[in-house]
Amino acid sequence: MEKEGVKLVGFWVSPFAQRVKWALKMKGVEYEYIEEDVWNKSALLLELNPVYKKVPVLVHNGKVLAESRIILEYIDETWKNAPLLMPQDPYERAMARFWADFSEKKVLEAGFEALCTRGERQEKAVSSTIEALEKLEQVLKGKKFLGGDSVGYLDLVVGWLAYMMPIWEELASMKILDSSKFPALDEWINNFLSHPGIKDDLPTEEKMKGYFYHLSRKVAPLFYGGEI
Amino acid sequence: MEKEGVKLVGFWVSPFAQRVKWALKMKGVEYEYIEEDVWNKSALLLELNPVYKKVPVLVHNGKVLAESRIILEYIDETWKNAPLLMPQDPYERAMARFWADFSEKKVLEAGFEALCTRGERQEKAVSSTIEALEKLEQVLKGKKFLGGDSVGYLDLVVGWLAYMMPIWEELASMKILDSSKFPALDEWINNFLSHPGIKDDLPTEEKMKGYFYHLSRKVAPLFYGGEI
Repeated sequence: MEKEGVKLVGFWVSPFAQRVKWALKMKGVEYEYIEEDVWNKSALLLELNPVYKKVPVLVHNGKVLAESRIILEYIDETWKNAPLLMPQDPYERAMARFWADFSEKKVLEAGFEALCTRGERQEKAVSSTIEALEKLEQVLKGKKFLGGDSVGYLDLVVGWLAYMMPIWEELASMKILDSSKFPALDEWINNFLSHPGIKDDLPTEEKMKGYFYHLSRKVAPLFYGGEI
Repeated sequence: MEKEGVKLVGFWVSPFAQRVKWALKMKGVEYEYIEEDVWNKSALLLELNPVYKKVPVLVHNGKVLAESRIILEYIDETWKNAPLLMPQDPYERAMARFWADFSEKKVLEAGFEALCTRGERQEKAVSSTIEALEKLEQVLKGKKFLGGDSVGYLDLVVGWLAYMMPIWEELASMKILDSSKFPALDEWINNFLSHPGIKDDLPTEEKMKGYFYHLSRKVAPLFYGGEI
């Protein structure tokens, strides 16, 4: 692999790779995109990320970075031009890290469980997702973006919610993003998806539907012991 | 609670609270320490950290912070005097965050499982811990501290290993920190524990032994389905 330049190893539907694509685009960083087959991992991925064997991996002038939230901070600290992704105040920055981690542990994980389960197990996962979103609703209240007036780190981390959750809701016949319960999040979804560059490079709804239809049916018996 | 000053809510044996104590001491920050009973959580803790209900919580001039690694970065960004805890280079900083997260997920969790299990389950957990430590051994090679020449963020995050793992090894009759396997880590443990301020405020071996003896017996049937 060449030592110069920026390369991103991703997977078309990975929300973790997507946030890195957004960040590079917002910063105006040119890069080579390398599509990985996560179901049949390449020697390159195993070499670049031997610890977790996961996308995304960013390679910058030969330096290799894994873990999407760590990559986002690296991008912001390396390409210091606007827009700044992290808040400049240390407390605001700590809060962005706190809620980013929370959204991963409490919204993404529970939401994915709700996609891949049915019955009581699903009801519980839907409730957990909604409970977690109530906290994000409070964080968002009175702001246009989670980053304040403009899209920032936390918006990019939570961004999957805006375009992926509606697909999950439809596939699993569940309601999570209820606009009467979450007016601020509802507005944020519109604001976020209308932001320049955010919608440009997203996978199509149809392709995502097909992927998650099969993934949820594949994962259900393995992880949750039941068929869906 | 008063709005001025710095307060830390901790629990005497929590490795997560310990790393915050170390950071505040290294930065020379005066603070009020509030001991929490994590087995009978106070109204104060539930109010300060309603999301996770866990120690440590740092309160700085009325601003509330949870999650120890986030608190460490906040401390470093707020009290900018030496010693700097985070590396200054963005790539080194990303690596510190990566290995800190890794040590939590792969060393601390597996090590605790090894403490609380026996038989095959324990053997597996011991192997996982050793495998993860082999990676940290590589990170450390040729350096005095994980932070380079001086104690930094990653040392504080991994610091529990130096004084707590030997107790776990004794209680669970297992060998993990084998100095022939981990010469760099072995030297690091000595360097770290000899560093000014690190050993000052640690719980005594006897008190830790009593605590983890009872904790491991309490946790084993709940989490691992077997008595030890």
